[in-house]
Amino acid sequence: MITSTQNDRVKEVQALQTQAKRRRKAGRMVLEGVRLVRDALQAGHVAETLFYTADQSETLDALNIRGLEVSAEVMRTMSDTQQPQGIIGVFATPQFTLPDQPQRVLILDAIRDPGNLGTLLRTAAAAGVEAVVLAPGCVDAFNPKVLRSGMGAHFRVPIVELDWAQIESTCAGLTVYLADGQGETRYDAADWSAGWALITGSEAHGASEAAQRITQQRVYIPMAADTESLNAAAATAVLLFEAQRQRL
Amino acid sequence: MITSTQNDRVKEVQALQTQAKRRRKAGRMVLEGVRLVRDALQAGHVAETLFYTADQSETLDALNIRGLEVSAEVMRTMSDTQQPQGIIGVFATPQFTLPDQPQRVLILDAIRDPGNLGTLLRTAAAAGVEAVVLAPGCVDAFNPKVLRSGMGAHFRVPIVELDWAQIESTCAGLTVYLADGQGETRYDAADWSAGWALITGSEAHGASEAAQRITQQRVYIPMAADTESLNAAAATAVLLFEAQRQRL
Repeated sequence: MITSTQNDRVKEVQALQTQAKRRRKAGRMVLEGVRLVRDALQAGHVAETLFYTADQSETLDALNIRGLEVSAEVMRTMSDTQQPQGIIGVFATPQFTLPDQPQRVLILDAIRDPGNLGTLLRTAAAAGVEAVVLAPGCVDAFNPKVLRSGMGAHFRVPIVELDWAQIESTCAGLTVYLADGQGETRYDAADWSAGWALITGSEAHGASEAAQRITQQRVYIPMAADTESLNAAAATAVLLFEAQRQRL
Repeated sequence: MITSTQNDRVKEVQALQTQAKRRRKAGRMVLEGVRLVRDALQAGHVAETLFYTADQSETLDALNIRGLEVSAEVMRTMSDTQQPQGIIGVFATPQFTLPDQPQRVLILDAIRDPGNLGTLLRTAAAAGVEAVVLAPGCVDAFNPKVLRSGMGAHFRVPIVELDWAQIESTCAGLTVYLADGQGETRYDAADWSAGWALITGSEAHGASEAAQRITQQRVYIPMAADTESLNAAAATAVLLFEAQRQRL
């Protein structure tokens, strides 16, 4: 049982939780809580190390895995949350590849808020998106808050980081839509039945120039008169499920 | 200029920021940041007190209002955010009344997460909802995090707290839908063209018994095979804009 917060493994988890650079270099991510760990195991990922507190030993039995017991204080030290759930797993970061000629692609342009990115990934997975592309400027997809609000989306949809040149070639043959409150095409008048890519930018800064350059149609969601905008994740949910509705 | 964090006015703002009871008793809310304060002023609300730091004095001139200057330390003490924007206004809490026979009503059932509630309010305002009803168990709508993620929705849509008996009578004549992943009616097959009320429950706990009791149809959003759920705010956005789409 680990009881020292100065333990090397404990310090390594702390570093992985807080530093994107460290995660990238190590090729590791940290999953917190029963649900995320179970999702990862069910998707075929193998925990390199699993830490738990005594109150979670039955959960480990139920999951049929073994782990390293740690004290509550050590768990708090490793956790990214205020109220740790008592299970933390270190996993190799999934190596995603783009599917061949994906027909439903969500491109995220400089989404910096971790909670927003996680919700966007979750929504994309639920809406049958085939690949999520993180354009330059997005927060790391394996940030603990992104993982948490993604609720397992990381194991259901490929998430790839591309530069704009790569994005442009990925979009060859697809209609490229940009979510834009000032757009010219009402979102439900757009044709989502053939292959498409949808670009969502950050609320604060709008779409980048590179995003504008590859856009073919800017789609808007009509809103009640005196309101001006939707949360990026809410707007994207509306667009992705309209695409899904047209397809079904 | 106020420089003491022990100043009575400063302490009062702190109390209003952190205690729902205090807000209710005083009938006051605290708005942080230029955007929220401007939204409130434009909606005709009058600031009882406006606090600002020196770097924001031009903003006050632009808004044509006067305030009390405070030190950066005092602003940090009063602020609910990590990076205060330098403007905090104390306003009387809006007194909402239900419109007569509203035809588009969102009922929120035990939504406890402030960020989620704010996003739901913002989405409702954008989707042309006529009244948002907070059923028992919701977080206070004037919690600073709700106000922040609501992005001014509090000034655009009436928000009323009702018990279930009152909700039932408000829903007389409306079709009452419940958002439910296990529902029997696909959301886009439901008829949103006549008057409706939509009940959204918390992700964690689902709909309450009282909500189930007044529900007429449970609507679901079809999702990709191996994903199980959407964030409550994302699902509600999809439903509200489908209703809006059918109406337009």
